[in-house]
Order: sequence, then structure tokens, then C-alpha cells
Amino acid sequence: MTLAEIRSAHETTLAEAMQANADRTFYAHWPEAPSGKIYGETANDDGLAGFQKQLNHQFDRLPAESAWTGEEVSPYGFPLGITYPSIAVEDLIARGSAAQTAWQSLTPADRASILVEALERGAKDFFEIGYATQHTTGQGFVMAFQASGPHAYDRALEAVAMGLSAQQHFAMNVMWTKPMGKISVSIDKSFRVVPKGLNLVIGCSTFPIWNTTPGMFAGLVTGNAVIVKPHPGAIYPIAIVVARVRDVLTELGLDPNVIQLAVDTVDAPITLDLVRHPALRIIDYTGGPHFGAIVEREAAEHGKIVFTEKAGVNCVVLDSTDDLDRAMDNLAFSLTLYSGQMCTAPQNIFIARDGMKVGNDVVSVDAVVDKLREKIDALVFNEKAGPTTLGAVQNAATAKRVDEAHGLGFGVVRQSAPVLQPGFEAARSLSPIVLRTDTSKVDIYTKEWFGPISFVITTDSFEQSLDEVTSSIRKHGALSALVYCTDDARMQQAEDAIVHAGAPVSFNFNSYVWVNQSAAFSDFHGAGCNPAGNATFADWSFVTKRYNVVGVRKQA
Amino acid sequence: MTLAEIRSAHETTLAEAMQANADRTFYAHWPEAPSGKIYGETANDDGLAGFQKQLNHQFDRLPAESAWTGEEVSPYGFPLGITYPSIAVEDLIARGSAAQTAWQSLTPADRASILVEALERGAKDFFEIGYATQHTTGQGFVMAFQASGPHAYDRALEAVAMGLSAQQHFAMNVMWTKPMGKISVSIDKSFRVVPKGLNLVIGCSTFPIWNTTPGMFAGLVTGNAVIVKPHPGAIYPIAIVVARVRDVLTELGLDPNVIQLAVDTVDAPITLDLVRHPALRIIDYTGGPHFGAIVEREAAEHGKIVFTEKAGVNCVVLDSTDDLDRAMDNLAFSLTLYSGQMCTAPQNIFIARDGMKVGNDVVSVDAVVDKLREKIDALVFNEKAGPTTLGAVQNAATAKRVDEAHGLGFGVVRQSAPVLQPGFEAARSLSPIVLRTDTSKVDIYTKEWFGPISFVITTDSFEQSLDEVTSSIRKHGALSALVYCTDDARMQQAEDAIVHAGAPVSFNFNSYVWVNQSAAFSDFHGAGCNPAGNATFADWSFVTKRYNVVGVRKQA
Repeated sequence: MTLAEIRSAHETTLAEAMQANADRTFYAHWPEAPSGKIYGETANDDGLAGFQKQLNHQFDRLPAESAWTGEEVSPYGFPLGITYPSIAVEDLIARGSAAQTAWQSLTPADRASILVEALERGAKDFFEIGYATQHTTGQGFVMAFQASGPHAYDRALEAVAMGLSAQQHFAMNVMWTKPMGKISVSIDKSFRVVPKGLNLVIGCSTFPIWNTTPGMFAGLVTGNAVIVKPHPGAIYPIAIVVARVRDVLTELGLDPNVIQLAVDTVDAPITLDLVRHPALRIIDYTGGPHFGAIVEREAAEHGKIVFTEKAGVNCVVLDSTDDLDRAMDNLAFSLTLYSGQMCTAPQNIFIARDGMKVGNDVVSVDAVVDKLREKIDALVFNEKAGPTTLGAVQNAATAKRVDEAHGLGFGVVRQSAPVLQPGFEAARSLSPIVLRTDTSKVDIYTKEWFGPISFVITTDSFEQSLDEVTSSIRKHGALSALVYCTDDARMQQAEDAIVHAGAPVSFNFNSYVWVNQSAAFSDFHGAGCNPAGNATFADWSFVTKRYNVVGVRKQA
Repeated sequence: MTLAEIRSAHETTLAEAMQANADRTFYAHWPEAPSGKIYGETANDDGLAGFQKQLNHQFDRLPAESAWTGEEVSPYGFPLGITYPSIAVEDLIARGSAAQTAWQSLTPADRASILVEALERGAKDFFEIGYATQHTTGQGFVMAFQASGPHAYDRALEAVAMGLSAQQHFAMNVMWTKPMGKISVSIDKSFRVVPKGLNLVIGCSTFPIWNTTPGMFAGLVTGNAVIVKPHPGAIYPIAIVVARVRDVLTELGLDPNVIQLAVDTVDAPITLDLVRHPALRIIDYTGGPHFGAIVEREAAEHGKIVFTEKAGVNCVVLDSTDDLDRAMDNLAFSLTLYSGQMCTAPQNIFIARDGMKVGNDVVSVDAVVDKLREKIDALVFNEKAGPTTLGAVQNAATAKRVDEAHGLGFGVVRQSAPVLQPGFEAARSLSPIVLRTDTSKVDIYTKEWFGPISFVITTDSFEQSLDEVTSSIRKHGALSALVYCTDDARMQQAEDAIVHAGAPVSFNFNSYVWVNQSAAFSDFHGAGCNPAGNATFADWSFVTKRYNVVGVRKQA
């Protein structure tokens, strides 16, 4: 396999992906169905066998080191027993720095082609990745397959394509000839992409691939050497991705340390040592807001580039609908999916005390709330769909938070209860709790209640609901907002207010798209302009802040 | 004049400018010659008359305020006596915030067209701008005309075009249809540009328009309301530009406070009050490194976007040349032009103690240095070209610095002396001082010696010269670097080293292009990756960091 072969193999893919980024219509390079017809009849069995073989073994797809580390435990109730080669911070930095020089001297198109080759090969891992993700994050298998496989790989391709578009926009070599009356003067100019420096990508425990590939591939395509530092509770999925990229680099005779995996434990974390290292110039962070704020502060103090996707408090406004059943079906699914452990899941549902207009009728708050409970119950108690939609709870702290919510003494719309995950008796799985309150409790419900916890909050009016939402976005951030409203003027009012506050907004979702979802090549994930984070997958800034263009001029 | 007329009038200009940004070949929308044939036979007389009429009067092209402020003094030796309407910080913020809402709701193409209309009308002011710039900065008239007129307006157009390219890259409205087996689901999506917030542009005293228009127009085209805060010593030139943009906005029925002029005095500065105001989200700064570092720190602490172009220490390496006369002619001009008061002017000239290879001969350091002095003398003592090339010294501190340099006790290659500016007996004008030392004085010559001060530094070798340069770039920053070298291997070595260190590099300039120059639409000004500043006129980041794209999704 030569670089020329790789270039020509992926030229069309890259051209399509660049076009898709511009068009924002539906585009997916990897099909999302975990189907044998697409990925091969034995793909599921092979992936499961690979997963089972990996359990209780060293992860030897990465080169051996003198120390091995690993402490992952499945939220479905068993330790994974996998250890990973552990590299000291100074060694990670030295190896990354050494590898970067050759990597940055490749053309952007070559870097992009190599990365697509790695992604294409990685698609063969989707089923193992699905099981690895299920048993680190707690996601149900189908969601784990989709989120960490095709959807995450599409986000990676999106970032590669954006990075390539940006770098290719300017001519790389030109003869500049200035007419000066009877004479002219010529200068031979070239423009070189200079990466900012080592790029650290800090992962989270709930979306170990989807939240990591955008920064990882954006850093790589723009010439930076990247160090991926996953959450100690969810290393396995991204380790597979890192190993695949390294394999391709090695085959091409390039230094594989362009991409490295940095592992640590909860008790001996190394993230801040990496963040603070002077050679480290770019930081991608997805995860909780507390540690995110520390990372942002460290980066700001030392002039580093930082991309964050922390968390916010996502709001819903219930004003009016043509079909309450479909609306509540949709909302119930959003509250239930992966037990509310998505950064885009709704938390606070505002409704005017007069209730909701449904067609020409007015439905009382009590009746709307009953309908919501009924729809959640129908999903949770569905023997087939319930457990797999909910999945398991990644972190014990999230389960404790459900108890804490119950202890608030608010009205209970729906009580949480343990859910049996067939085949995994010890799984930590809980159904959603929905509480009811009013705006007097604003200090409580505007905290982030991460997990299967939501609040229905009655307000005086649609206007007050909207004010609550925009004020919450500005103060606490948000990654999504959902409005049910059939009145054109109110829709426009809500759109303007929420967009100006800095959050993306969805209206009247009532079928097979949910507010939690964010589609690669179309939806910008993380608006970047509210306290929930400063980054967007994948807009111009997400790639262009990672490098500079430096000019070389020669007298011609 | 309607918006539709403006759109169609400037469509071609914008398309050409966007293409020029991508091509990087020679492009100029406004001719640089201060010629009556181009700008009208009476243009010079009209401009001079306008200038003279403005002296000792209120600047009434901006709306009256209760207070008027102004203390500008021409470096050619007389007070301008102009006062400007003075607006309190809170009023600037309130007016800008109120104006921004309508401005951001225009399409990017409409904003760009309006800005081009303002620039085209402003071109009628070039001669007055030339005199205004001459008598605030000290530049000779021709340079003042070019730098503040056509060159600055081209930089403005470049920024507008980059901003438009970036915003137009993504579709603004699409129907997203996802196939799901036998059914499909459609979502109507739109993507809205949300400006980060008020944009402050802090100007400097030496390039009051050229250094201000890029940030000003980048902020405006991306939907931000902009407050321009010029240096109290150089308000007049940019006031003309601001007034023209306001006129166009007013004619179109838009709130002119989208662009405001904030004036202050040296004794009662308001810049930090603006920088610290929470509504102020973007800051453009060009000027000295000390205050620039304060601005950067304030911005970092409060999560604001900041673009800086401070100053660095620009280096030259003399290794080899085919034609010493032409090389030294070129270098002498770069050292003399505007008395070294350009952020791109060379300061430290490194030469190996064995001398310089010229063709097949070796010329000693003494002889090279003699040649350089001879070339500076020829230019300075040229009765016609000397005074206008040198211009006057903007700040008394710069003249004092020349004395300080003399007092270092270094070898004197060329002594500075007062220069008579015909017609302006009281002008503060000085010829260049060139000193000679070696690398033992590194702590002295790596300071920024702003003004007509340079050092010839002997080293052990070409390699040591290059090490000195790259170390200086990394520690002290640079906006330019110049190398004379005819050996291919050494050229490549120098290119790689200097580019990796983060500075643009020029080789073997020997005709009518000088290292100080930075051409709009071709040269990226300010690499953005060394301590001299973080911004580049005008790369992607220079525009894309000023706004976010926020999505709106509606069930279709």
C-alpha cells in the first residue's frame, strides 16, 4: 500500500464529504444499521468473539510498555479486566513531538487520505466497538454500535473534510506579479500549514468515541500530533480506533506516535499534567462542567487553544401541538434514551399553567403530564424495547442523583425504579424520574441533573416559559432546546430568542428524529456560544484554530 | 439607494475579492498611485483643502455629543486642534448592543455589500486620509496615502470577502431527509449566524487605518456591532472611515451605531473599561506589546475572543548574494522607510564573522557594513526621496530611544542625525542609527528597539545566525524575517527553521518589494503563531472566531 494508492482510493469519499459539509443535507458514509447484510453475516459474531477474547487480557494492539493500567467495569455488572500500555507524560510529549515534524510536512490531502484509510479499516471493528462501548458506557448495544461506530466515524470524516476544505482553500504556491507602470516585479510565494503543536483530546465516559473522534481527527488532519486521554472508565472503545490509525501509519513508514493513547486511573490521574505541559498547545475536552472549567482556565492562562463541550441544562417548552400523542411519544423517548445520559437530553420542561393547546382544544397541565408519564411507561415497560433503550447507568453517582432528586419533595409525575437488563442481573439500570414544580424552585432545577431526571415546571405564560429558557441558556448553557408550538408568531419569537441566547432549537419533533440527536454533516453539535462549551462539531473554527498559514517569499 | 441596488453594484467586486483571497496572486481593488488621473485631477487639492478646513474644528461628520475631545499633534510640528464627540463607555455599549440586533439579521451578503459601498465611497477620501495620516503618524505623504488609503481599503475588502466566504460556505436552509428503510423522515433546517457580541477594535498611532480596518470590517461582516477606539494621537484618519460607514447605514435606514468611534486622551484612557465590559466579546488590538499583554490577559480571564498584533524583533540573515549592491539597496530602504516605525521593519542583522559570499567572492563583514551605510546615506541624503521616505517620528519616546541606543557603547556603523522636512521646520525627523555588536549582547539586542535603530551582529556561522533568529522568534516574536542566501540547501534549512519557529520569511529581496511590505489578498500579515501576536490578516480564524452558526430544526 502506497500513499498514491491511498490518495486515489479515498479521493471520492473526501470530495463527497466536503460537499456534504457545505450542503448540510442528509449524508452518511457508514450505514447506521448493525446489519449483517451491510457489514458481513459474521460481523456480529466476530465482534462479540473479539470482545470476549479481549476481556481479562492486555490490549496488545498497542505496543507493550513496562507498565499496564486498566480498571474498567461494565455498568452491566462485571469488571472488564483489560489493561493498556501506560506511558509517562514526558514520554508521550517527547514521542508526539518527534513524530509531528514528518506528519506536518505531508500535504493536507495526504494527511486526509491516510485518515480516511484508517477510518475505512476501522469500520471492520464496528461490532467489537459496539460491545466495548456497551460495556463501558452502559448504552444498549444498538445505540452503542451506532453512536461509537457509524455516527462517530461520520463525525470523524466530517472533521477531516472540514480540515481539508480549510487548508485547501488558499493556493499553496503562486507567482505574484505586481505591475508597476512600465515594469513589473515578481515574487515566488508559498504558504505552509504550521500546526499549533501537540493536541490533547480528553474523552468522557458516556461517549468515548463519538465525543473524541472530532477533535482527534481535526487535530490530525491539520498536522498536529494527537494524544488521546480517555476517561479511565471507558478506554477500550477508543483504544481500538487509536490502534487502527497507528497500524496505517506504520504500514506507510510513518511514525505511529502521531497518535498516542494516554491511560490513567481515577486515583492517579495524569490529565492536568498533560494540560499544563508547555509543548501541549491544543486541548479538546468533552465531559463534566467542573473539570471542564479547570481545563479552560489552565488553557487561557497559558495561551493554549481549547475546545470544550461540557454540559448544560436543556429545556423544552410545551405550548401547542396538533397531536399530543405523537409529541409526548417523541419527548418520552428523548427522556428515556440511554437514561438521560446524553448531553443533549432534555431536563426542564416548561408549560404555562393554563395548559397546552392541542388542535382547537386546551389540555390541562395535569392531562399533559399524565400523557407524558403514560408514554414513558409504555416505552420502559415494553419488554423488548425498554431495557435496550434505557441501557445501564454509567456512573454510580448518577444513580445516587436520582435518589437525591426524589428527596427534593417535589411533586412526582413518574417515579424511578430499577430495570432488569436480561442476561445482566447486576446491571445498574433505572427508569426515568419526572418531577413537577414551579418557577419558585429555579435555583434547584437550573442545576444540571445529569441522568434520567427531569422536571415539569409550570409558568404563568408562554412568554415566561421562553424567558426561563433563554435565561437558563445564558447562565447555565444548553446543547439543545425543544419547542412544541403551532403558532407562527410564537415560533418565530421562540426561534429568535433561543438562537440569540446561543442554543440550537428544534420545533415540534413528532416522529423518528429526537432532540438528543445530532447528525454529522448537517447539525452543528455544540453551538459554541453559551456556557455549555465553546466548540462546535465541526464548523470552520473547529479546524482553523489548530494551525497557522505561514508565508515564504522568494525574489523571482 | 436601496439594498438591492447596493447588492447588485458590488456583486462582482465581492466575487473577485473572494477569488483573490483563494488565489493569493497580485490583486488590488484600489490603485496605489496618488494620481489625479485615477482619483480625479482635483482630488489632491480637494483632499488638502478638506484637511486644512478640518484643522482647529470639531469633527462634525459624527453626531454631536455634549463633550468633545482631541489632543492630536502632528509629528511635523503643529497641533491639529481637532476635537471629536466623546461618548461614555456605557453609552457606547448600550448603543452598539441596540444596533446589533437588526444588523445580525441581515444576510452575510447584504452586510458585505453595504460594507463595500462604504469602502467605495470612502475611496473619495483617500487624499484627505493621506494628509490626516501624515500629520498623525509622521509618515511621508505618499506612504500615508497608500498605507491608509488603497492598501488599508484592500485589507478591509479582504476581510469582508473572507467573512463572506466563510459564512456562505454552509447552506443556510435545507430540507434534510433521512431514508429509514421503507419510510423516510424530513426535517426543515436553517442555520443562523450569531455574532459573538460587541467587537472592540483598538488602534495604534503609526498605522491608524491599515491596522484597524481588518478587525473593524471582519467584525462588521460577521454581524457584530463594532466600537473603534483609536490611539488618542491618531484619531482623525479612522474617524473619516467610521463616518463614511455610518453615512451609508443611515441612508439605508439602518442604525448607524453598528459602528461607533470611541475617543479618549492619554491622561484619561477608556480602553480597559471597554475591554473589561461584559457585553464586549471580541477585541482586536494592534500596538505595543506591554499593553497588548494586558489586553490578552483580560480577554483570557473572561473568555473573550482576542486578536492581537503586537510587535516583535525582526531579523535578517546575510549569508550570500549574487549582487551585494541590490541586496543592500533593498535592506537600506527597509531600514529607512518611515524611520523603522513599521512592525515589519528589520532590527537585527546577523552575519557570520567570515563575511558574505558574493558571487564567487567573499566580502568581509567590514565591507558589507560599509556598503549598507553607503546605501542608507545615499537614500537619506537624497534631497527628494530622503525626507519623504523617512517621514517624521510619531512619538517623542522613539527619538529618545535613538539616544539610548547610541549610549550603549556599541560600534557605530551609522550615526543618526536630525533630518530637515522641507516646509515643516519643527518636524521630529531622524535618520537611522546602525550599531554593530556580537552575540554576547543578546540580552540587549533582542529587546524591541522600535524606531530607526538596527544592529549588525556577527556570529560564528550561518548556522549560529539561524539559531539566533529562530530562538529570537520563539522568545520575542517577529512579523517578518529576511534571508540573503544563494545556496539551495541553506535556503531550505532557513525556510524550515523560520517557518517552524512561526514567522514568515522572505529571501533575496533585491528590487521593488521590501520585507516590510505585506500585500492584501496575498501575504498573511502576522503569522499568529509567535509572541508578536495571535492574529493574521486575514485567514479563516480572523473571521470565523467572531460568530457561531446555530441550527434551527423544524419537523417537516
